[in-house]
Amino acid sequence: MNDFKFSIKHTDENTKARVSEFETPHGKINMPVYMPVGTLATVKTLSPEELEEIDAEIILANTYHLYLRPGHKTVKKMGGLHKWMNWQRPVLTDSGGFQVFSLAQKKGHNKTEKKTLVKIKEDGVEFHSHLDGSRHFFTPEKVMQIQSDLGADIIMTFDECAPSNASRQYIKEAMERTHRWAVQCKKEHEKIQAKREIKQALFPIIQGGIHKDLRVKSAKFMADLDLPGIAIGGLSVGETKENMYKILDAIREHLPENKPRYLMGVGSPDDLLEAISHGIDMFDCVMATRNARHGSFWTKDGRFHVKNSEYKEDPNPLMKSCSCYTCKNFSKSYVRHLFMEQEMFGLRLLTIHNVYFLIDLMRKIRTHIQKGTFLSFKENFLERFKN
Amino acid sequence: MNDFKFSIKHTDENTKARVSEFETPHGKINMPVYMPVGTLATVKTLSPEELEEIDAEIILANTYHLYLRPGHKTVKKMGGLHKWMNWQRPVLTDSGGFQVFSLAQKKGHNKTEKKTLVKIKEDGVEFHSHLDGSRHFFTPEKVMQIQSDLGADIIMTFDECAPSNASRQYIKEAMERTHRWAVQCKKEHEKIQAKREIKQALFPIIQGGIHKDLRVKSAKFMADLDLPGIAIGGLSVGETKENMYKILDAIREHLPENKPRYLMGVGSPDDLLEAISHGIDMFDCVMATRNARHGSFWTKDGRFHVKNSEYKEDPNPLMKSCSCYTCKNFSKSYVRHLFMEQEMFGLRLLTIHNVYFLIDLMRKIRTHIQKGTFLSFKENFLERFKN
Repeated sequence: MNDFKFSIKHTDENTKARVSEFETPHGKINMPVYMPVGTLATVKTLSPEELEEIDAEIILANTYHLYLRPGHKTVKKMGGLHKWMNWQRPVLTDSGGFQVFSLAQKKGHNKTEKKTLVKIKEDGVEFHSHLDGSRHFFTPEKVMQIQSDLGADIIMTFDECAPSNASRQYIKEAMERTHRWAVQCKKEHEKIQAKREIKQALFPIIQGGIHKDLRVKSAKFMADLDLPGIAIGGLSVGETKENMYKILDAIREHLPENKPRYLMGVGSPDDLLEAISHGIDMFDCVMATRNARHGSFWTKDGRFHVKNSEYKEDPNPLMKSCSCYTCKNFSKSYVRHLFMEQEMFGLRLLTIHNVYFLIDLMRKIRTHIQKGTFLSFKENFLERFKN
Repeated sequence: MNDFKFSIKHTDENTKARVSEFETPHGKINMPVYMPVGTLATVKTLSPEELEEIDAEIILANTYHLYLRPGHKTVKKMGGLHKWMNWQRPVLTDSGGFQVFSLAQKKGHNKTEKKTLVKIKEDGVEFHSHLDGSRHFFTPEKVMQIQSDLGADIIMTFDECAPSNASRQYIKEAMERTHRWAVQCKKEHEKIQAKREIKQALFPIIQGGIHKDLRVKSAKFMADLDLPGIAIGGLSVGETKENMYKILDAIREHLPENKPRYLMGVGSPDDLLEAISHGIDMFDCVMATRNARHGSFWTKDGRFHVKNSEYKEDPNPLMKSCSCYTCKNFSKSYVRHLFMEQEMFGLRLLTIHNVYFLIDLMRKIRTHIQKGTFLSFKENFLERFKN
């Protein structure tokens, strides 16, 4: 697809890291990239202008949530996600697979009947809304239609993300179902795209738990679909960092070189650095925004809590060398005060800082890959940073 | 004081309305002016830049709240309110009188002992923090010192705002105490200002409940203090609009012509128009920001609720002719969605609209006074606007 041209600009000599560009109908994305999460078509506490100032190049929204409320038909009537939320840069929607299996199961209407809330069938998944218990049925085809209505630039195939404690047998079956669904998604997607003026790129999702052989099998299968990108799911659902890196190692040679590789739901600054070393190009994670709302912020030294009483009369910014709006304009003393008083502007200031921290980290990583100094940058960063 | 020059630019022929300018060390204020309320040194949900974009010319902060947390000494150490909250335009601090008698009484530590929570003595008031029940004592002198530490441009004398259901006798006593305290405040203020590089203007507060003769007496007393402005307190504490207008009528001829007149805690769009007709120049009110957080917004037709199901697929802005950030960029559909999902960006969008609505109303009022069309503007507005 010409609408989604991927170009590798630099590859690192010491690791698998690379700098690349991915073109979309809403602009070019520089990779590696961190995508702030806007589950409900809003990155919590931030305006589109603030995201642009932070230089977020793409944001993520969620099919499951927006399907339930306000409904994909409403978003479509309002002109699609970009127009509705006044965001002109690229958007990616997750397929809802992960949420159907996590949210709908965890927070279902009837808490005593957890196991019956999600019924997996060959043709799709029946689930109950975590909001009101209402019944819904997702098929691969339906998930493609919903994502077409939402109108993101990058959309995902419908997948089953098996729990990390599931048996190997179950994980294998879920993976095979995910493969069949991916084929169906691709087929439906092609039909839909033929009628769309503004095209969407579909990415398949590799599954297989922490089993190397299954992951390799899944990577090969999804690579063979020859879609414009490829994603790795199920590695941020309670797996250890060691298992995550092991899987990234195992599948690396089976991932297409010339397509963006997206590690879903990851992660912390140290995970981003490691995964980029393994050749990953795209990330999303709620940690930056969620931590901020809970009062914690990153600096080069690690993670700190803004309510620390030592900050009461600290005139310094959250991080001295930081160029974000928060650090340029406000002291720890003031941000702490806002948090102590539960003032909403405080949540915003910390969110801006954390999201900026990751986006700025990606910018630095791209520069170091280009300069050939990525490995030493990574080692120095990880030595100092205490997660 | 040359730091606080007041100039009347236009007076209306049909009403007592006037357009004026008040100079402060942090810039000139065009009056009539609405001051957004930033109780805890933040106008809830908004950044200083957003307030500037809305063109808020002055904001209000609160002595009582900031004295309790983080403490005026902390704010002083951090460089004062302007630097701490990164707001370079004028600030006014209320004296804390109103809050001592309302908050400390209502939400005291021991709810069964309401009446003992505030002890009024001739030299000041003992009260318990509404936050932790800790004991504090405010004197007129202390309130001047606190407000000097906070560093606002306009500060207020310490007053007792008697409950609206108090006896005439009690209201008279409270008023007389307020007069004595105002004299003490002025004296202490003069001492403090002599040592300050950046000067502050002290405004006294007229009290006297809904009793015309007491109000006239209080107005004369406070006018005689010859301070750079004058305020009217106790008319937004449960009085009817009729009583408020009656008092404004009664005291009008006793207010100094050549000084700004500030009606505290008022109000709604209709109250602003009426009070301006009575010659009032300054207002503050939490209604714009509080209503917004509760999901209601103003248009020329009155007050509406954003969760109205009719707005689900409404592509129009909150108010068609509005030029605020919210109305220029987002539909009712999107703002409603944010509210339905309790997304914080929704609170911000509605706050921007409501604060803009009042500030834009003041701008229009100033223009109409200058053009001699204020009375017809007021009548047309009030005919259409349903509160």
